[in-house]
Amino acid sequence: MNAGSDAQKIKNDVVTAGRILIKRGICEAFGHVSARLPGDEFFVITPKASMIFVEGPEDLVTVNLKGERVEGQNQQPLETWLHTCIYRKRPDVGGIARTHSFTTSAFSILEEPVRPVHDFGAILLGETPVFPDSHLIENEKIGTRLADFIGPMGTAALLRGNGTAILGKDVIEATIRAVYLEESAMLQYKALKIGQPIYFTVNETRERGTQLLEAAHIYRAWEYYKKCSL
Amino acid sequence: MNAGSDAQKIKNDVVTAGRILIKRGICEAFGHVSARLPGDEFFVITPKASMIFVEGPEDLVTVNLKGERVEGQNQQPLETWLHTCIYRKRPDVGGIARTHSFTTSAFSILEEPVRPVHDFGAILLGETPVFPDSHLIENEKIGTRLADFIGPMGTAALLRGNGTAILGKDVIEATIRAVYLEESAMLQYKALKIGQPIYFTVNETRERGTQLLEAAHIYRAWEYYKKCSL
Amino acid sequence: MNAGSDAQKIKNDVVTAGRILIKRGICEAFGHVSARLPGDEFFVITPKASMIFVEGPEDLVTVNLKGERVEGQNQQPLETWLHTCIYRKRPDVGGIARTHSFTTSAFSILEEPVRPVHDFGAILLGETPVFPDSHLIENEKIGTRLADFIGPMGTAALLRGNGTAILGKDVIEATIRAVYLEESAMLQYKALKIGQPIYFTVNETRERGTQLLEAAHIYRAWEYYKKCSL
Amino acid sequence: MNAGSDAQKIKNDVVTAGRILIKRGICEAFGHVSARLPGDEFFVITPKASMIFVEGPEDLVTVNLKGERVEGQNQQPLETWLHTCIYRKRPDVGGIARTHSFTTSAFSILEEPVRPVHDFGAILLGETPVFPDSHLIENEKIGTRLADFIGPMGTAALLRGNGTAILGKDVIEATIRAVYLEESAMLQYKALKIGQPIYFTVNETRERGTQLLEAAHIYRAWEYYKKCSL
Repeated sequence: MNAGSDAQKIKNDVVTAGRILIKRGICEAFGHVSARLPGDEFFVITPKASMIFVEGPEDLVTVNLKGERVEGQNQQPLETWLHTCIYRKRPDVGGIARTHSFTTSAFSILEEPVRPVHDFGAILLGETPVFPDSHLIENEKIGTRLADFIGPMGTAALLRGNGTAILGKDVIEATIRAVYLEESAMLQYKALKIGQPIYFTVNETRERGTQLLEAAHIYRAWEYYKKCSL
Repeated sequence: MNAGSDAQKIKNDVVTAGRILIKRGICEAFGHVSARLPGDEFFVITPKASMIFVEGPEDLVTVNLKGERVEGQNQQPLETWLHTCIYRKRPDVGGIARTHSFTTSAFSILEEPVRPVHDFGAILLGETPVFPDSHLIENEKIGTRLADFIGPMGTAALLRGNGTAILGKDVIEATIRAVYLEESAMLQYKALKIGQPIYFTVNETRERGTQLLEAAHIYRAWEYYKKCSL
Repeated sequence: MNAGSDAQKIKNDVVTAGRILIKRGICEAFGHVSARLPGDEFFVITPKASMIFVEGPEDLVTVNLKGERVEGQNQQPLETWLHTCIYRKRPDVGGIARTHSFTTSAFSILEEPVRPVHDFGAILLGETPVFPDSHLIENEKIGTRLADFIGPMGTAALLRGNGTAILGKDVIEATIRAVYLEESAMLQYKALKIGQPIYFTVNETRERGTQLLEAAHIYRAWEYYKKCSL
Repeated sequence: MNAGSDAQKIKNDVVTAGRILIKRGICEAFGHVSARLPGDEFFVITPKASMIFVEGPEDLVTVNLKGERVEGQNQQPLETWLHTCIYRKRPDVGGIARTHSFTTSAFSILEEPVRPVHDFGAILLGETPVFPDSHLIENEKIGTRLADFIGPMGTAALLRGNGTAILGKDVIEATIRAVYLEESAMLQYKALKIGQPIYFTVNETRERGTQLLEAAHIYRAWEYYKKCSL
């Protein structure tokens, strides 16, 4: 596969990712998803309008690492800086989901991290902390602060009163992490209401998360959620 | 656009608002929505039957500020006075949603206000208090009391054991506020069950709410919920 | 309308009632609904199989007040005695819904009554107590005990670990009560989790319930839920 | 019916079971279901991919009691050993559902058993304990430990942080038990949040469970859930 067909596949995956996140209510009127293009200097992102209106790759916007639109007829989202600043700092990251999943939002306004309690939640590889600033990530300064907060190894952050940012090596991994972060939060929350959940240990999280991140498992989940989104 | 086409657009928006509120379960068998017509002396309102049966502008009823039907073949709702009395007192209000959203109802029977905890909830611009009288708003006297309770700046009230009244500068704003008031209540509630939510400060609420009330954001939400209601 | 066309309307209403209860998950694999026929000596009831398979009046079974099938090709439900014994004791009752609505079930296993907290819940006209015996209502003895427990004025009972029995002057009233009893339980439950709900007073319940039981309101709700069930 | 047509019926039931579990969200991307074939030396199981992609008996895999695939073009699941080891130890078991139902998962991470509180939950015939190891059941050793944990009489186990294993005399019984185990967990959970549920006694559980396990009742439920899954 050459760079051109790679780019085309990536764009198609972003369109599918948008459908999955909309279908599951993880994004509604707001929220978007992006993926880095081959060559590392550009990324594609869903446009300013709700992702429910994305019909194909032609609706996406291509942005450079200065945060400038370089291709696409639609406007880029106000919070493009969330993506730009993370891609700059984290060369290992190839996809980002910026969601408003509901139970994670509850943890965010409690300033409590989401912590793995089950197999699928281990895919985050550790706990997901709360970035305490409720502002939109709409300029370079706050975008850089968020990227610093996530750090060199983080996989996601809750944004207080304002959803989540979730990272992956590609948009498929970011999307499945977005789905399972919410499921993990739901399960932790459900258990907390009637007792004390047994959190996964660091070793348990690493072992189970690494296994689930193998391509065969991730694609299995991706194919399932894709099918559900049709 | 002349007054005639304005009026037509407003009526179409009321029909769409009804569909959105029904689709999301914010109104079911009961509840209705209205909008002031150009010239300020009349408003249109969904009829007495459930809004699920509203198919187009021809199903709406036009009412004057004395609470009398002046146009339309359908009966007006029993609680038309809720709308009449608010439009009288609040010239800045162009749309009202009278809903039975579920989680807001739980706060109403606790006599606890809904308070902003996240970005979308800030659209109410402050906390939403509980009107303690559980009677239907079916006459001028209780309608006036409710309008006084909401006051010159209020955006909404919970009615104890009986749903909500939500105001906007137009029916679009009132509808999006109705959706986000319920979401805000859900999030506050969810957090309260396992801890103490960090409520938005007065400044944070004003800043984030004002930003979200900009036309581009409100229409983005409106277009999303409209699409979902089809 | 003569007795024949009355009977036909009643049978059609039972079919619609079944659809409404299935659609809302108030009945699933189990549960059934019945209505007294003109003349007071017989009632029609949905058959032994799940109501999801009821397609028309021809699927119903006619039963006399000795609990014997007198018409219909399908088998009558095991718990026909629940209906028989209530119709015997309560000449004012014209319809009965035997459901497994979920939140009412939670109150039943807590042996806590459902108490009106909002407008729609007042339609039960008072609190709904828990019949403590978890056996199926499958013979005359336990059926009579249940009818005695409900008494001359009761509108419903929770059956511990086994759903509910809900009465109405006709099957329409019984069905709308079944819907609002569950909604009432949901609201009471939701409030109880974070505080102390303000229960409707006896007077408030009587006043609001009586108003809601007027034909115009009940039919409005019936038309809405019927539309949702198509 | 000869062994061949028996086998065909069993395979069709496994396909239906998969649809039921997917439709209700009891299995999503992961989880699978199996049934023993006549002669007791082989069982059929849904393949490695999500059950949402199972279209007919030709998609199933036949496995022997050494855990080896003997027929079918698809790969068998990683956790085939869960099934193999239970079928080896329990000749009375003819069907197994391996699910990730959500509320049971909450009990599993609390290491709290699910205990019957209502009629349908009695179908488990007793409480469902938590197997404390969070590893996948992906080899003979852990499969044997799980089968030993369930023992000669057990009907199900929760797997900490990793779903459930549910047994039946055939795949129909296993499937209906999977549905009602989740419902039972939901009800116990709902009651626990606001009080102390009255658990069914050992006698009550045995009596009600045995009644519900009669073919007529189980098939009634199976036909309902099958209809819902179309």
